[in-house]
Amino acid sequence: MLPDRYQQGLKTLRDIDPNSPERVTEMFKDIAPDLSRYIIEFPYGDIYSRPGLDLKTREMLTVTALTVLGNAQPQLKRHINNALNVGCSRQQIVEIMIQMAVYAGFPAAVNGMLAAKEVFAELDALESKASAL
Amino acid sequence: MLPDRYQQGLKTLRDIDPNSPERVTEMFKDIAPDLSRYIIEFPYGDIYSRPGLDLKTREMLTVTALTVLGNAQPQLKRHINNALNVGCSRQQIVEIMIQMAVYAGFPAAVNGMLAAKEVFAELDALESKASAL
Amino acid sequence: MLPDRYQQGLKTLRDIDPNSPERVTEMFKDIAPDLSRYIIEFPYGDIYSRPGLDLKTREMLTVTALTVLGNAQPQLKRHINNALNVGCSRQQIVEIMIQMAVYAGFPAAVNGMLAAKEVFAELDALESKASAL
Amino acid sequence: MLPDRYQQGLKTLRDIDPNSPERVTEMFKDIAPDLSRYIIEFPYGDIYSRPGLDLKTREMLTVTALTVLGNAQPQLKRHINNALNVGCSRQQIVEIMIQMAVYAGFPAAVNGMLAAKEVFAELDALESKASAL
Amino acid sequence: MLPDRYQQGLKTLRDIDPNSPERVTEMFKDIAPDLSRYIIEFPYGDIYSRPGLDLKTREMLTVTALTVLGNAQPQLKRHINNALNVGCSRQQIVEIMIQMAVYAGFPAAVNGMLAAKEVFAELDALESKASAL
Amino acid sequence: MLPDRYQQGLKTLRDIDPNSPERVTEMFKDIAPDLSRYIIEFPYGDIYSRPGLDLKTREMLTVTALTVLGNAQPQLKRHINNALNVGCSRQQIVEIMIQMAVYAGFPAAVNGMLAAKEVFAELDALESKASAL
Repeated sequence: MLPDRYQQGLKTLRDIDPNSPERVTEMFKDIAPDLSRYIIEFPYGDIYSRPGLDLKTREMLTVTALTVLGNAQPQLKRHINNALNVGCSRQQIVEIMIQMAVYAGFPAAVNGMLAAKEVFAELDALESKASAL
Repeated sequence: MLPDRYQQGLKTLRDIDPNSPERVTEMFKDIAPDLSRYIIEFPYGDIYSRPGLDLKTREMLTVTALTVLGNAQPQLKRHINNALNVGCSRQQIVEIMIQMAVYAGFPAAVNGMLAAKEVFAELDALESKASAL
Repeated sequence: MLPDRYQQGLKTLRDIDPNSPERVTEMFKDIAPDLSRYIIEFPYGDIYSRPGLDLKTREMLTVTALTVLGNAQPQLKRHINNALNVGCSRQQIVEIMIQMAVYAGFPAAVNGMLAAKEVFAELDALESKASAL
Repeated sequence: MLPDRYQQGLKTLRDIDPNSPERVTEMFKDIAPDLSRYIIEFPYGDIYSRPGLDLKTREMLTVTALTVLGNAQPQLKRHINNALNVGCSRQQIVEIMIQMAVYAGFPAAVNGMLAAKEVFAELDALESKASAL
Repeated sequence: MLPDRYQQGLKTLRDIDPNSPERVTEMFKDIAPDLSRYIIEFPYGDIYSRPGLDLKTREMLTVTALTVLGNAQPQLKRHINNALNVGCSRQQIVEIMIQMAVYAGFPAAVNGMLAAKEVFAELDALESKASAL
Repeated sequence: MLPDRYQQGLKTLRDIDPNSPERVTEMFKDIAPDLSRYIIEFPYGDIYSRPGLDLKTREMLTVTALTVLGNAQPQLKRHINNALNVGCSRQQIVEIMIQMAVYAGFPAAVNGMLAAKEVFAELDALESKASAL
């Protein structure tokens, strides 16, 4: 029987992005399944599932953190997607990047904005493909 | 005549904390008054004065950024105060610190929480002094 | 009933330093008891309790990480103490600091060594006080 | 005549990976041969050649440092290879990455684990190619 | 009417690299033209246009900063180009990278030098193409 | 017989600040004399003694690097002193800090400027004490 934190983490992950649980599980299936399990249990089962802040605010904080860290571009793109999924607007993402010029410097802000630009373009491409059907 | 950005920055700073403009101006009066001016013009006149995000959200993003950076404790304490001034609750500050354990590691989260603890204690001391009058 | 991970975390923490559980619990008792609980559950209950690496090696890795991060001196001093508690020699701590000059630069190595110097002096003072009784 | 530190560095580099000395020398042959020389003399001639810690432990500390820094993926992959060469097991590499989630955050741990996954896959591909002969 | 800071920024950018203003303007034309404007106004209009330090020294400081940060390689390559444009020699760029081994560690220095190597090779390719005409 | 690099390092250190060699040697005399020796040999004997850049430029680069890193304030203050010793003006130090707002963010610039302010005040106090004799 899997513990409640794991089930809670799966549920919160699915609320953010229905494909996330499978992606997280697949990533380290062969070499480190425990890391996938911890990701589901601790960040999603324990933290994102807390009351106190809604998912939209939590994803905006995470986009901020990853823009400041500046060395985790794939995760930044993923969380920009997540933020949009849970109600953040594109303009709000853009505002985060602009504000981070003040705290982490212009290169961090520029690289964050370039990640946002890529995510927005991928979403537009998906949508135009869908509407072409 | 001072440019509009400077006046706008002073106004936004005062909305966040009435004592901020004087503190910023005094800090580098002797050695670098231009840095004080840039702080008022660019972060406050240009960025915090933008629509798109309210001041409460902006201060929460800044608290996040400074917790992740981990090397600017005086500024972190200042912005925890600012966030409380513009409508953020203590519990929301606490949630930010807990969430940052996931992205910047537990030492960053612990040091952020210790900064919050100091700010809260200073505010409680001020309040109990005030109510003793 | 407290979950097993919490009990396991307390046990591992006590193996590293008998005073740690109380210190961790006290630190955020008033403002964020959940953070104290997460520290006991995740780093100590989940991670340090894993087989695969012994406690001495784990503490040496942590001393390395905190020396590289360079912005968590209190935690660095704590983990230098912990490393000594679980079988690491002073000379091995010194070697870690010297090696980090290569990867994180000389200032990080120097500040790590100064932290080690303080820990060693505190331990010597305790010991000379004890032997004076 | 080349100084002893250089010869000692070459010997230690060869003990870690027989192809390293040539790779280091080639890398900056045209624009900065002195940097190649310093790499051989200081990290390898001076530091990795010290007693006090064995090569396996030193490579594990370096893998830790590079995972925490998070901005030197090619060097991280190289040192995961080196660690395996001098007696570290794959499982021990995996443990380092998992533990770093605690100190440098989950994105750093995930990106470290992805680097390990690539190294392991490259080694498996080499081995299956060799056994096919 | 565009403000003077913007015009001053364009002028300074053109002095450093005639193609820069267009590149900066194009980059975020669709999603965040304000960020492009801020880049022209604040770093170039306000800072690089100050007396006190010449452009060559300013670009050397920026190359240093980006090498130390280690997470903004495209910007680092751009500013190595800029430094060469305003009078810095290749050998001086090489010296910066070597010196940063001391302060940011060897991986940062190596990755900085690899960026320099790429820039130098691109410039040599351009030149040999031009002389072949 | 001490090697040439050590003698060269002592000489360069003395050129920068006559009291430096003793301070470096004393710092780790008891726990890690080898680290003191490496500091004299590698940064000062090898790097600062290279031609290619003069000492004033090298100290300005180091002040830049330490301002960006933001976690080595004692070393930053020391190198601001050193930069002034080898011909850098106070205004040039101020310009470095202002420029770093662009690349490392305003908190790094503010903390760098506060370090400069302390160094300048200490020097003024020394001077006014000397002139009072």
